Amino acid sequence: MRSELMTMLESRKDEIIEIRRYLHENPELSFEEKKTAQFITDFYKGKDVEIQTNVGNGYGIIVTIKGGKPGKTIGLRADFDALPITEEANVPFKSKNEGVMHACAHDGHTAYMLVLADCLIQLKDSIAGTIKVIHQHAEEVPPGGAKSIVESGLIDDLDAIYGIHLLPMGPAGTVGYHAGYSFNGRAYMKLKIQGRGGHGSSPHLANDAIVAGSFFVTAAQTIVSRRLSPFEVGVISIGSFDGKGTFNVIKDSVELEGDIRYMTMETKEKIEKEIKRIVRGIEEEFGVTCELTYTPDYPPLYNNPELTAKVAESLRSMNDKEIKEVKEFPALPPSEDFAYYAEKFPACFFYIACSPKGVEKPYFNHHPKFDIDEDALLVAAKAVGQVVCSYFEVE
Amino acid sequence: MRSELMTMLESRKDEIIEIRRYLHENPELSFEEKKTAQFITDFYKGKDVEIQTNVGNGYGIIVTIKGGKPGKTIGLRADFDALPITEEANVPFKSKNEGVMHACAHDGHTAYMLVLADCLIQLKDSIAGTIKVIHQHAEEVPPGGAKSIVESGLIDDLDAIYGIHLLPMGPAGTVGYHAGYSFNGRAYMKLKIQGRGGHGSSPHLANDAIVAGSFFVTAAQTIVSRRLSPFEVGVISIGSFDGKGTFNVIKDSVELEGDIRYMTMETKEKIEKEIKRIVRGIEEEFGVTCELTYTPDYPPLYNNPELTAKVAESLRSMNDKEIKEVKEFPALPPSEDFAYYAEKFPACFFYIACSPKGVEKPYFNHHPKFDIDEDALLVAAKAVGQVVCSYFEVE
Amino acid sequence: MRSELMTMLESRKDEIIEIRRYLHENPELSFEEKKTAQFITDFYKGKDVEIQTNVGNGYGIIVTIKGGKPGKTIGLRADFDALPITEEANVPFKSKNEGVMHACAHDGHTAYMLVLADCLIQLKDSIAGTIKVIHQHAEEVPPGGAKSIVESGLIDDLDAIYGIHLLPMGPAGTVGYHAGYSFNGRAYMKLKIQGRGGHGSSPHLANDAIVAGSFFVTAAQTIVSRRLSPFEVGVISIGSFDGKGTFNVIKDSVELEGDIRYMTMETKEKIEKEIKRIVRGIEEEFGVTCELTYTPDYPPLYNNPELTAKVAESLRSMNDKEIKEVKEFPALPPSEDFAYYAEKFPACFFYIACSPKGVEKPYFNHHPKFDIDEDALLVAAKAVGQVVCSYFEVE
Amino acid sequence: MRSELMTMLESRKDEIIEIRRYLHENPELSFEEKKTAQFITDFYKGKDVEIQTNVGNGYGIIVTIKGGKPGKTIGLRADFDALPITEEANVPFKSKNEGVMHACAHDGHTAYMLVLADCLIQLKDSIAGTIKVIHQHAEEVPPGGAKSIVESGLIDDLDAIYGIHLLPMGPAGTVGYHAGYSFNGRAYMKLKIQGRGGHGSSPHLANDAIVAGSFFVTAAQTIVSRRLSPFEVGVISIGSFDGKGTFNVIKDSVELEGDIRYMTMETKEKIEKEIKRIVRGIEEEFGVTCELTYTPDYPPLYNNPELTAKVAESLRSMNDKEIKEVKEFPALPPSEDFAYYAEKFPACFFYIACSPKGVEKPYFNHHPKFDIDEDALLVAAKAVGQVVCSYFEVE
Repeated sequence: MRSELMTMLESRKDEIIEIRRYLHENPELSFEEKKTAQFITDFYKGKDVEIQTNVGNGYGIIVTIKGGKPGKTIGLRADFDALPITEEANVPFKSKNEGVMHACAHDGHTAYMLVLADCLIQLKDSIAGTIKVIHQHAEEVPPGGAKSIVESGLIDDLDAIYGIHLLPMGPAGTVGYHAGYSFNGRAYMKLKIQGRGGHGSSPHLANDAIVAGSFFVTAAQTIVSRRLSPFEVGVISIGSFDGKGTFNVIKDSVELEGDIRYMTMETKEKIEKEIKRIVRGIEEEFGVTCELTYTPDYPPLYNNPELTAKVAESLRSMNDKEIKEVKEFPALPPSEDFAYYAEKFPACFFYIACSPKGVEKPYFNHHPKFDIDEDALLVAAKAVGQVVCSYFEVE
Repeated sequence: MRSELMTMLESRKDEIIEIRRYLHENPELSFEEKKTAQFITDFYKGKDVEIQTNVGNGYGIIVTIKGGKPGKTIGLRADFDALPITEEANVPFKSKNEGVMHACAHDGHTAYMLVLADCLIQLKDSIAGTIKVIHQHAEEVPPGGAKSIVESGLIDDLDAIYGIHLLPMGPAGTVGYHAGYSFNGRAYMKLKIQGRGGHGSSPHLANDAIVAGSFFVTAAQTIVSRRLSPFEVGVISIGSFDGKGTFNVIKDSVELEGDIRYMTMETKEKIEKEIKRIVRGIEEEFGVTCELTYTPDYPPLYNNPELTAKVAESLRSMNDKEIKEVKEFPALPPSEDFAYYAEKFPACFFYIACSPKGVEKPYFNHHPKFDIDEDALLVAAKAVGQVVCSYFEVE
Repeated sequence: MRSELMTMLESRKDEIIEIRRYLHENPELSFEEKKTAQFITDFYKGKDVEIQTNVGNGYGIIVTIKGGKPGKTIGLRADFDALPITEEANVPFKSKNEGVMHACAHDGHTAYMLVLADCLIQLKDSIAGTIKVIHQHAEEVPPGGAKSIVESGLIDDLDAIYGIHLLPMGPAGTVGYHAGYSFNGRAYMKLKIQGRGGHGSSPHLANDAIVAGSFFVTAAQTIVSRRLSPFEVGVISIGSFDGKGTFNVIKDSVELEGDIRYMTMETKEKIEKEIKRIVRGIEEEFGVTCELTYTPDYPPLYNNPELTAKVAESLRSMNDKEIKEVKEFPALPPSEDFAYYAEKFPACFFYIACSPKGVEKPYFNHHPKFDIDEDALLVAAKAVGQVVCSYFEVE
Repeated sequence: MRSELMTMLESRKDEIIEIRRYLHENPELSFEEKKTAQFITDFYKGKDVEIQTNVGNGYGIIVTIKGGKPGKTIGLRADFDALPITEEANVPFKSKNEGVMHACAHDGHTAYMLVLADCLIQLKDSIAGTIKVIHQHAEEVPPGGAKSIVESGLIDDLDAIYGIHLLPMGPAGTVGYHAGYSFNGRAYMKLKIQGRGGHGSSPHLANDAIVAGSFFVTAAQTIVSRRLSPFEVGVISIGSFDGKGTFNVIKDSVELEGDIRYMTMETKEKIEKEIKRIVRGIEEEFGVTCELTYTPDYPPLYNNPELTAKVAESLRSMNDKEIKEVKEFPALPPSEDFAYYAEKFPACFFYIACSPKGVEKPYFNHHPKFDIDEDALLVAAKAVGQVVCSYFEVE
């Protein structure tokens, strides 16, 4: 089956690209991907699969491909939402939806997955087990789609799950992997510090919230510098210090908002504990009242080491002209809601390099000029196809 | 002449109150006091004085009363602008001008001064010298009216100048004085700190302006705590920290605004030098670019000690039933543009207590419920009248 | 009696100077003034007074002079201890006690007081009341002698108390006074911050006491800059930050010591409360354990306004060639244990100017080159004599 | 030759242990290893090698083993100095040199190397190339022995160099490797901040060095928290804040000392630049004068990736009952002067696990109770032997 699948995929390379371009021209924001979901559902019409739509908290779709014999069940996840970015890439299939852009390559994820799924449907009799293709909505905006799909109960039977991300971190043909923690988890914080206003000339009759807020910012630096191990990945960025007021009036309250990142659950716990400690300290120290909202959203993404080792080994052994290099990639700063699947199931989320040909410093995902080498789409299809074959041990 | 003046003033007490109430009902904002100025000009119509209108940068008025014989020249200043405050005092003559209020008692200053001036005009033959009554616009808003009146050249001949302020710091009948520095000077500062924006997860690729701004705020505290003498009066209040942004985007720039107060010119120089030093330090320390606007406006108000001693002595010797107590008052936190006169001429600016009867904790000037005991208006007229008599040594 | 007293004092001017020089050559440290006390006791031998020695926690002496008739009782205080300073003043009667020096003029205080007391003893029949001369030990070192003398119960009957200080703030002949709070109170603080040591390369396994200590120092600045009124006198100086350690070992604990000054009891309370608040805040914020020792010692010295006004008036009315000017002095930064008397009794502590003749910038008290114009000693004797006469209304 | 070597090593296991115990009983401090060096030199006596002693800045020894044919040249490094630690391990061969202890396993490094070298000497005819055994002194104390040996010119001809460290990070039989940066580099800093002393009650007349120092400490936290990438390893620990003084005297100067760690040369450069920037900022901000000594010592240790991959592969292919597991280890916080060799030559420094049997949480290197499983010594000998065979491609 393996070589048959590869041959089928090769023959449908243009179709993958065509689908990707169609999706690229018609991007939809997270939780609003109605037409995209319809497009995907239409694609499966008449095929021998079970389809569940409107899964989770949005337009999630689960396509179940039952193999010829019973066996294990795996998930293949591809996300399909776009971003609120005005496209600046100079491509003929530019976004037709002003202010919305597939700047994170989810169009490519969906395109390769549809064609791969179709091929697997055709070859399913050779498979002893079940494949659940998860077309996921809303990856970009917390709480995301993944969590709700996990909670839907519809994939409770998974034995493993795989996903990929197109990243301009090498030429098409390169596949990357990373065992263990691979993408940052993150939390959102909002801190309202309530002091007491007053006239600028009489500080003793007021309680200056700007001073308390400034001490919070300086003290918060010590969490990363003193509380984390130097080998631990953690970030606290206060992105907003809303203390606009009148120059000669002591500010009664300020509102800070921040972004917290961490690579392990241990770091997550540690930072949360320390921020709460500092907030209590500032209350005591300056006699202000603090209201802290602290909301962890996507967890760190943990790639199961055995599963990841198998993926690497299986890809390395392919001897496929399209897949030129398989190598370890570093862990990465962004966050990914695939992490929710990985919390529950043995998972491997790996990287398909897609730097446009001839471009030395490609624009990264989320940039208005982000672009991919579409050859990488076939690489993605073949790589995931190979992983599926290896998992079910079909030759 | 002295007792004649006092008798005349007593007989016109109701008129003073009536004028004050009219002005209270018709307040006008600084630099917009067109009708108030017209009202004042009309008051002097037909009287034997020289009137200059539109003096300085607004509706300033100078009324020159020439005495019977030549001699020295003194100024008497009364300000007439109101504040952008919606009146909440429960009085029958409440402001008819929505959102504008005579909450700083300038209505009372003008009312007593008009009647006092009229009396002095009638008695002017007994005076060996000249009195210039300065009805001043725009005391409340820098750059104020005083500076421009001084610069107009129309009062270059003053040998001394006097002014008073109604303050709810005691019952009507109490007059206060303070020699030397008496009201704070002040400066306005705006500091723009330019860093470099970036994604919250990658602080090393950005230059966090919120962190630099917070360190500025904490370092600025040391100016008052370490650079000033404990016996020196100085305040630095950062009233605005405009750093509103997106929680997960490192802020590229913040804008701080602040209010600086000081009681002497030495303190003024010191604070300005130290703030500039810290700004340069923050630039160096954090690699940010700072743009500092530092604008001193009203200077500290300095009461000439000899003149003030004479005022106190002269008032104490009055033996007038209206003027019950003459005592030293403390220096005060606010700023006053009378300070510009006092920079150039021997000056004494003193206090007429006006706490409403039966009120233990009266609302202070600038409060929406500010109110006065109108008995204090006659006290003001008599006290300033007495000071004039003493200056010209008329009995 | 008044003119008789002045004449007597004038005739004994040389004796006062002689005594002062003897004491100057034989200074003794606080609580060790055995010989000085003996000298004073010997002086009174055979005179018609009651003497109590070893009063309070040291060599304090109380000499009671009973007048011819009953009446009120006043105290006159003169301190007699010296300082651990090696004299550098170039005088023929230089200290013979190496490393100890009368650098605060207590020698002069004692010298004028002995002769004045002797005169008053001779004239006591004219007095309707009692004078208690308090020769006080140990003014320089907290807890000082004053507190223990007050607590001895031996002066419970005072109706008023007076004292003076020789200060090089003008030529001999100038006497200064200041009503209300006049000398700073002070407190001592020691803060031990206990974190947890560890290797410099692994901050997360330790709890860095130097970082916590540094944040305490920066936060403590806000007490003076934000908690006190700009018109309030307060100082917090951390004079010692004992955090010496090994460069690559994270410090487990640091010890800070500081000096706190304040001009009123309100400021005293406020600063103590705020320091305790910040200490608790630092504990919470950094998870360290703090041990705070906070020991107020001398209170602010409060001169009773009525008594002070009477002193000023009485001195101004003297018409004495020695007493050339009587004027208001500013409040002063140092602390004085006369404050303990002033807490309990109506008190007036005033200033006798003593700048050496022809010296523009004299060395201040406590300087190794401190020196006085000895003419000021007679001024002191006469001024205090006059105050006594006025109090008992003798002419 | 390979199996012959392994057999020889196995037969001499007891001898390795015996040597190790002898060295353990006779530890010598860095730069004082006279007897140890003599012991090593004696060991080679009569063997067919060239020996150079007193190499570099101490007792370094280079033993050159020339193979049967010409070829490449490799270095094998074993360090032999001990630590100033009083042994608390309960072993029969406890240190006889009070206060000195082989607590970092250099005794083991030397023991296995001597026996391995002896075997290689016996088998050298099979080798096409040269082996330089580097018995290195003074690894523990900067500037260390490695730098001077590199600079001696005696190893300029190396084509590769290997070294190992015994670490209680797993049972004897486990070998670890890490490609790329593997041990931290480090720098030492001393910062003298010169302000101006003064009396605690008058901060404005002084320039408080403790305040400036505290702001340095708080600002320095931002280097790790904001200037480094979250994936970058860097530490700044201020281990000493020498600001001991008198509580009521404002401190004129303080001296800080610190330890800086970094995993790459880029991080090294960045931290040094930022510390210098903050120092200049503090000078400007507080008007103090700073004197900064900044001395990088051991660089980060960089394992050549190709060489490391070959080491891992070669060890994995051994099929030796002693070498049970070969796995990737993490990078480690300490610093190692092997880094100097790795700066100049392709290098691989790898790990020999040696946790004592049955001990769950073994004491780490540098602990007074540090102990090893001596079985690890044979593992070390075999592993390095294998690496040598692989390098010269002998079977």
